Amino acid sequence: MPKTKLTYFNGKALGEPIRYLLSYLNRDFEDNRFEPEEWPAIKPTMPFGKAPILEIEGKVVHQSTAICRYLGAEAGLNGSNNWENLQIDMAVDTFHDFRQACANFQYMEDETIKATRKAQVLNEVAPEFLQKFDNLVKENGGYVANGKLSWGDMYVVGISSYIQFMLGYDPFEKYPNLRQLREKVEAVPQIKAWIAKNP
Amino acid sequence: MPKTKLTYFNGKALGEPIRYLLSYLNRDFEDNRFEPEEWPAIKPTMPFGKAPILEIEGKVVHQSTAICRYLGAEAGLNGSNNWENLQIDMAVDTFHDFRQACANFQYMEDETIKATRKAQVLNEVAPEFLQKFDNLVKENGGYVANGKLSWGDMYVVGISSYIQFMLGYDPFEKYPNLRQLREKVEAVPQIKAWIAKNP
Repeated sequence: MPKTKLTYFNGKALGEPIRYLLSYLNRDFEDNRFEPEEWPAIKPTMPFGKAPILEIEGKVVHQSTAICRYLGAEAGLNGSNNWENLQIDMAVDTFHDFRQACANFQYMEDETIKATRKAQVLNEVAPEFLQKFDNLVKENGGYVANGKLSWGDMYVVGISSYIQFMLGYDPFEKYPNLRQLREKVEAVPQIKAWIAKNP
Repeated sequence: MPKTKLTYFNGKALGEPIRYLLSYLNRDFEDNRFEPEEWPAIKPTMPFGKAPILEIEGKVVHQSTAICRYLGAEAGLNGSNNWENLQIDMAVDTFHDFRQACANFQYMEDETIKATRKAQVLNEVAPEFLQKFDNLVKENGGYVANGKLSWGDMYVVGISSYIQFMLGYDPFEKYPNLRQLREKVEAVPQIKAWIAKNP
């Protein structure tokens, strides 16, 4: 039995950046997926009622961004110093905020408010954010930070399918630097192999 | 002129953990505060339209949690290894999620939905979360992680006044381990001095 086990919904979303990084590390892991109808029974068993969790040598850790930063550091995909780590964290948290702006309408109950908020994100928030983030990648030599591959790139590309699901279109399509970043990450041999076998 | 300058609203909220850490570092910093009515003019000058920002030697950084992690590492208040850093990050992100659950009702426009969501957070989310977080601090020897003072403790205590503002009561009052954590952080000489002079 593998000593590393990821437990998450049967989908990409917050799990995919972790799967990318585990793949990058060539870590043999159990990809334990559950369906939405199983969640009410699983939720109370999660440390703070949320998924994903990762079990490493029997120890449970949670919080997807924290897990990605940890795996990134283990893989040498962190910065060379505190300042470089800050640049990666800034990019990741900025992208995380954008993801949450999408989630904020996605999971609204009131259909009228949801439609208004979704239109606002699609027409205003997303184009403005994506253009700025595309510029950031351009300024950083084709990466989210420091002119080199980091766990931040794995995070942004890994989670982009979740953004696509919520927005209803490929968020990177119109942005050449973001498209190239995705191509670069998806061309990393371990990531390419993971995508090929990804259920 | 100080080489470090924090720009944020004239309030504690997301700025206070940064002020704690700059104080802990004995860093001379300009505490540049603006009023809500100035925000529309300032917002377009922020890297991704958000505050706080920190200027260090003329370089602008943003994202409050990322800044705290950076200052914590500079201060030696990070973990001793990747695993310890993960434990701090987990605690911080978990507390951040709780802060956002509060912000989600605080800034709602529809008063009826806001009242319902606020009641849910006050009666269900907050007591369950705070009890779990109190247990976490107990299990970690009186700190949020690793049985020792870290930037995570500075973050949690520094941001607790923002939670108090949103909930309308002291979130730590009923939880002995959280109360003791706050007392410990506030007794650190640099933090004590900062609180005494805090406007």
